[in-house]
Amino acid sequence: MKAESARVIADLEALAALTSDERGAQRVAWTPMWRTTRAWFTKKLKNEAGLTPERDSAGNLWASIPGASKQSLIIGSHLDSVPGGGWLDGCLGVLAGLEVLRRYKGKTPPLTLRLVDWADEEGARFGRSLTGSAASAGALDAQGELASLVDRAGVKLPDALKENGVSLDQMANAKDYFKKLSPRAYLELHIEQGPVLMEMKKSVGLVLGTMGVERHMLKFVGQAAHSGAAPIHLRKDAFLAAAEFALACRAISEKYSGKTPRSRVVATCGVVKVEPNFVTAVPGSTEISIDLRALDRKVLRMMLADARVAAATAAKRHLVKVRWTPLLHITPRPFDEALMRIARKAIKQVTGEAPELPSGPLHDASEMAAVVPTAMIFAQSSPGISHTRLEDTPRAALDQAIRAFLLTVDETLAASRIALGV
Amino acid sequence: MKAESARVIADLEALAALTSDERGAQRVAWTPMWRTTRAWFTKKLKNEAGLTPERDSAGNLWASIPGASKQSLIIGSHLDSVPGGGWLDGCLGVLAGLEVLRRYKGKTPPLTLRLVDWADEEGARFGRSLTGSAASAGALDAQGELASLVDRAGVKLPDALKENGVSLDQMANAKDYFKKLSPRAYLELHIEQGPVLMEMKKSVGLVLGTMGVERHMLKFVGQAAHSGAAPIHLRKDAFLAAAEFALACRAISEKYSGKTPRSRVVATCGVVKVEPNFVTAVPGSTEISIDLRALDRKVLRMMLADARVAAATAAKRHLVKVRWTPLLHITPRPFDEALMRIARKAIKQVTGEAPELPSGPLHDASEMAAVVPTAMIFAQSSPGISHTRLEDTPRAALDQAIRAFLLTVDETLAASRIALGV
Repeated sequence: MKAESARVIADLEALAALTSDERGAQRVAWTPMWRTTRAWFTKKLKNEAGLTPERDSAGNLWASIPGASKQSLIIGSHLDSVPGGGWLDGCLGVLAGLEVLRRYKGKTPPLTLRLVDWADEEGARFGRSLTGSAASAGALDAQGELASLVDRAGVKLPDALKENGVSLDQMANAKDYFKKLSPRAYLELHIEQGPVLMEMKKSVGLVLGTMGVERHMLKFVGQAAHSGAAPIHLRKDAFLAAAEFALACRAISEKYSGKTPRSRVVATCGVVKVEPNFVTAVPGSTEISIDLRALDRKVLRMMLADARVAAATAAKRHLVKVRWTPLLHITPRPFDEALMRIARKAIKQVTGEAPELPSGPLHDASEMAAVVPTAMIFAQSSPGISHTRLEDTPRAALDQAIRAFLLTVDETLAASRIALGV
Repeated sequence: MKAESARVIADLEALAALTSDERGAQRVAWTPMWRTTRAWFTKKLKNEAGLTPERDSAGNLWASIPGASKQSLIIGSHLDSVPGGGWLDGCLGVLAGLEVLRRYKGKTPPLTLRLVDWADEEGARFGRSLTGSAASAGALDAQGELASLVDRAGVKLPDALKENGVSLDQMANAKDYFKKLSPRAYLELHIEQGPVLMEMKKSVGLVLGTMGVERHMLKFVGQAAHSGAAPIHLRKDAFLAAAEFALACRAISEKYSGKTPRSRVVATCGVVKVEPNFVTAVPGSTEISIDLRALDRKVLRMMLADARVAAATAAKRHLVKVRWTPLLHITPRPFDEALMRIARKAIKQVTGEAPELPSGPLHDASEMAAVVPTAMIFAQSSPGISHTRLEDTPRAALDQAIRAFLLTVDETLAASRIALGV
């Protein structure tokens, strides 16, 4: 399948040339460049697979090859990018899916084959990620979550949607559209976006699921004071409490991380805001975010419990108060065992081995996993960084990842033929 | 001297009524309200002490009663405040000095008595504090330090000076003006601005000197990464290094602090700036300020050496780099032993005891201590906070502090009579 993966890579390069500037990919959802991207993609579907895509009411783009069964194998990912993004994040999966449609053109697969380009996976412009896939999975409260979102230029999300032919009022209908597709399996190929496979020197990995997330904002409140006038033992230094909390969370992540990539957990304090933030002021208050992730639901719960104890202990030691505000709770989404078996075998066939890892970042596959058996394959990131024009996968690894994915699709269809008896 | 301290307190209340709004005192140097303050003060000098003040070329305001000797005892502090400041910070010392002039009106003290209202002690508008006293002490490089300063409204400091009749080019002459005054001693009364006396339940304290300051900005630089994708052991988390440094500095301050207020030292991390400062991003860089203070020069040097080791250790542990940028170096300024003996005796006479403490904040007295024997008396702060309209001193403590100060002035003059034989 070398020729097939070469075609996918050529498509990725053509898309990058069309939609990038010197700062990287600029395919931000609901913008003119995103519409340019989809026009290019629609033309290729027409010319190379003979297909005219449909849009559901959330703006997701669907192209289908009817199969022997109405039940469908869905292949998907997203063409949208962050501003200044990479050339593979999202579009790798969609363009590998295009190759699947090219290969099955004029054939009747055992399941109906559907390729979806999810709308606004990144949430880069308005802050709500996984918009399209969440709508299809019935996990989006469009009115509640989207109606009041505004971009940096002051444009309201509902107006940006309208500009793209999407009505906020109608978005919930994407769920019904999705159900009528009789989904039976969902497969996604994506770049890892992290350094795990690179560090293991592996080209392709089987994703075990996406980690659950506990994200909270903490506010430590003490008493601002003059750096010279306030004796140490009388201080209520909110930043020192936050610093102690952050280091405790690091220790928590180490306590719960096993030795294998499978049992990896993470804890991150990414936002820190100190008040009054003067060189001569003892910090009176400090906001700090915590983002805890684990694939195992019980482990995630224990990490959060430990973090709560750590915050209370740090607050007590520094004579300050602490208040928690929940930001995000996402359930761990382990993927489907039967589909993973097929994908594991395909990866092994192409690369000789099938390393397994959970995904820390969320994906459209996280939304799908809640409503349809799902599996996901990662291509190595090298360097292991994401959301930058420096994002890359070595060509040999990219070739293997695409081939492993195409084989997984074939084997899933073959397995369904047996299961369905078609 | 109860009637005298009551007069000072009445003056303080009148000034607060004239120059405060609901957010506190608004006597910011080089603004219309500051000019209003000085017009009020000038009128009082004229009406109540029969004196017409002179301005030196740095904008300091001087009123003098000629003595038997041309050598002078200088009494000073500042009428300017921060925006939303307290009713005592600075003006307590100036208005106690006004009372001294009222008491010596028509008399010939053994030393020439001079009261100075230093210009722009706070540096609230342009960021350079101790401007006037530093100019008199020859410690201000007006062109180098002031020429390019701009306030929040975009007004340049030289233009604000001009509006107040001060020329940047001429400021250095304040040093010569000062020398011609034949200064022999400098005395200042000030509110403590911290909780040390309050915690000790003392009304009045003898200030041992102002602490030296080592102020630096550190930048820890690691690698930003996705909170889900980056495994803990591969992270280069700049914030965790900064957090560890801040906690180490707290430990350093505890290590070098003795049990007495005299041997108190402090360390403060007041500014913390994390990049990229997203909930989903491992911090790639963190700037953090350190402000170390001690009265003992050797102790200050050891604290800085320990902080450098702590920063390097934290950086190494978190696989990041650290860079130091010096912001401010101020030499400790211990006050004059002979003057402190006089002040100690006076405080004891009024309150029954004379607790001693160093000042963490700088004062005009810090500049004076470098060029003339200096002593300083603190009135208790209660609550022990500063630069806020909530700043206060209980009336009984205020009364005692003013009386102890007036007595110190009398005794200093008496002692000089003996020393000079006038």
